[in-house]
Amino acid sequence: MVSLPLITLLTDFGTSDSYVAEMKGVLLGACPGAVLVDITHAVPPADVRAGAYLLGRAWHWFPPGSVHLAVVDPGVGTARAALAFRAHGAWFVGPDNGLFTPVLRDAEVEIVVLPTPPHAAPTFHGRDLFAPAAAALAGGTPLQMLGEPLTGMPTRLTYTEPHYEGKSVVGEIVYVDRFGTLVTNLTTEVVPPYAVLEVEDLDIGPLRRTFGDAPPGGLLAYVGSGGAVEIAVRDGSAARRLGLGVGGRIRARLG
Amino acid sequence: MVSLPLITLLTDFGTSDSYVAEMKGVLLGACPGAVLVDITHAVPPADVRAGAYLLGRAWHWFPPGSVHLAVVDPGVGTARAALAFRAHGAWFVGPDNGLFTPVLRDAEVEIVVLPTPPHAAPTFHGRDLFAPAAAALAGGTPLQMLGEPLTGMPTRLTYTEPHYEGKSVVGEIVYVDRFGTLVTNLTTEVVPPYAVLEVEDLDIGPLRRTFGDAPPGGLLAYVGSGGAVEIAVRDGSAARRLGLGVGGRIRARLG
Amino acid sequence: MVSLPLITLLTDFGTSDSYVAEMKGVLLGACPGAVLVDITHAVPPADVRAGAYLLGRAWHWFPPGSVHLAVVDPGVGTARAALAFRAHGAWFVGPDNGLFTPVLRDAEVEIVVLPTPPHAAPTFHGRDLFAPAAAALAGGTPLQMLGEPLTGMPTRLTYTEPHYEGKSVVGEIVYVDRFGTLVTNLTTEVVPPYAVLEVEDLDIGPLRRTFGDAPPGGLLAYVGSGGAVEIAVRDGSAARRLGLGVGGRIRARLG
Repeated sequence: MVSLPLITLLTDFGTSDSYVAEMKGVLLGACPGAVLVDITHAVPPADVRAGAYLLGRAWHWFPPGSVHLAVVDPGVGTARAALAFRAHGAWFVGPDNGLFTPVLRDAEVEIVVLPTPPHAAPTFHGRDLFAPAAAALAGGTPLQMLGEPLTGMPTRLTYTEPHYEGKSVVGEIVYVDRFGTLVTNLTTEVVPPYAVLEVEDLDIGPLRRTFGDAPPGGLLAYVGSGGAVEIAVRDGSAARRLGLGVGGRIRARLG
Repeated sequence: MVSLPLITLLTDFGTSDSYVAEMKGVLLGACPGAVLVDITHAVPPADVRAGAYLLGRAWHWFPPGSVHLAVVDPGVGTARAALAFRAHGAWFVGPDNGLFTPVLRDAEVEIVVLPTPPHAAPTFHGRDLFAPAAAALAGGTPLQMLGEPLTGMPTRLTYTEPHYEGKSVVGEIVYVDRFGTLVTNLTTEVVPPYAVLEVEDLDIGPLRRTFGDAPPGGLLAYVGSGGAVEIAVRDGSAARRLGLGVGGRIRARLG
Repeated sequence: MVSLPLITLLTDFGTSDSYVAEMKGVLLGACPGAVLVDITHAVPPADVRAGAYLLGRAWHWFPPGSVHLAVVDPGVGTARAALAFRAHGAWFVGPDNGLFTPVLRDAEVEIVVLPTPPHAAPTFHGRDLFAPAAAALAGGTPLQMLGEPLTGMPTRLTYTEPHYEGKSVVGEIVYVDRFGTLVTNLTTEVVPPYAVLEVEDLDIGPLRRTFGDAPPGGLLAYVGSGGAVEIAVRDGSAARRLGLGVGGRIRARLG
């Protein structure tokens, strides 16, 4: 069994229009045989922060050498740079607006700036600029052939880091998933197994293992599949129950 | 043209988060060249019954030897068993909670219980337990290598069966599709072509062939593409028009 | 790298049911190794006009020889013909109801009428009639083997064409995308770069290049990635802001 070139796609384009399909047509025209996998196209429009979270979670589950094409690009057609780079043995292509912040963490990278093709639609670089670059990388074109090295640093989002308040670590909600689960920025690096959780002054109790450790409809905290503390309602939505979203405050009491 | 290993996916994970993509990364890492086909990821959260209906309809349209990975798993991380089995010449992988009830009907099966890998996230067996098993089967690993034989019977959902009341057969709505079509449990085995249908005391008339046999906006009953009686509104939604959903009562008058 | 047969799918079936997956099972059973790409399955139910717009935009981004399977088919099971044809070096399969109008424009075509297989579900020709024909074409079966030549002309939608009113060109909104962008029927063939746009008597100003040329929250007009004038709100929805949809009037003042 031969490993085919693999290209993932993450956008805020939705799947009700033809935009994603037009990108896929370009990818398959330029790199026949590529395997295309959608990460998601339901990033909220222009929500670079949510796109960065999802890409940062998903990319490392794919085989080495995969190409990750990510386009959440409210600045399309402006002076923001278009990037392609190699990090952690994988390739990444997309706008220089912070979307790659989690990917760039602790990475040795080699970044090039992609030129804008003369006939690119100024509102659709996903199809006319980024997809051709991703297909070229998937087909074996060396990175250096695609553009000039980036001078300076790529754009990075700033994150609120967890901080200590007495015998507590305080963090915040960074993502809400389809089930209404509240994903926080508290990881097992700062939260020991004996911690007791509070969200906006509501006591959630100690860390559980899984949903079944709470009664039906009960609130629980646990270490989620991405390595961070999450707050959920068994068979329900914590976001709805608590009326909370991104930026909401979480506290882990350590003693 | 060579037939590649084919893996279908059915979950309640939605497609707005990265969960499905993480599973696909694992599948393609462990079984490069596998063809992945989504059945659906929009099963209502934790709705094992809806998942069972959809899987039961869809699987047999795929080529023999396909692997069907189905994860609607509210008991994830608890003592519920994780299964892999062969039935009707295809492979199935997922939780032992009734999701496979329609597949197991009239099937000779050979079932193994999958062990939980030590580092599996207790809330995401789809990625860490079921996907690796599905990829192994797709890659040719014998079922017996994946776990111990199941002792006892797999979990099965119980269904209300159609029953006779005088000269009528009475059944119920088992699924509502995106068009608002009401799919019932009355099949052509119990409903003859001359039957006249009633839903919650509303007369729907005789079985029609297709939507065009009703006037625009008209209610009609017909034998649907899954072999069961369905109630629809031409160019509209029967669920909305009638205010009905799963469990609603349907009667076929036979004389 | 060998180019595999490529089949695109466009339907109004949604992705929450198993209908699309059943079609894909049939396609992969009859043409193993085919690459399947979704254009979209979120065409509003029975909206042939929206389906025609999306197919007309998307198909030509795919490699020559691709098979485009399009099923928005409110007349399924009635006397409307089922078609397969070759145009512009690609193949198309679907109902004869106007869905292919943009594809048929300026095309030399060879059209056959597909017979209905005896056991086809009268409500699901997508699976039982169109998918087998698409798979056959993808697998190399000659078009003439699939049916008799169409006598007469295929069904075409009628479109309101832009017209001149004094020193203005007047057109209309033909599609609204997921971002609330209003896509019009005014193309660069009739709208010069110096035109000034008005929508329902609201002045939008001259054509811009891209979203960044308007202030955040500002309305703008520009030539979109499909070659037509579009009206958008930067980081917002023009459809919501203006309360407009398909059929809304747009005017390009030329002097």
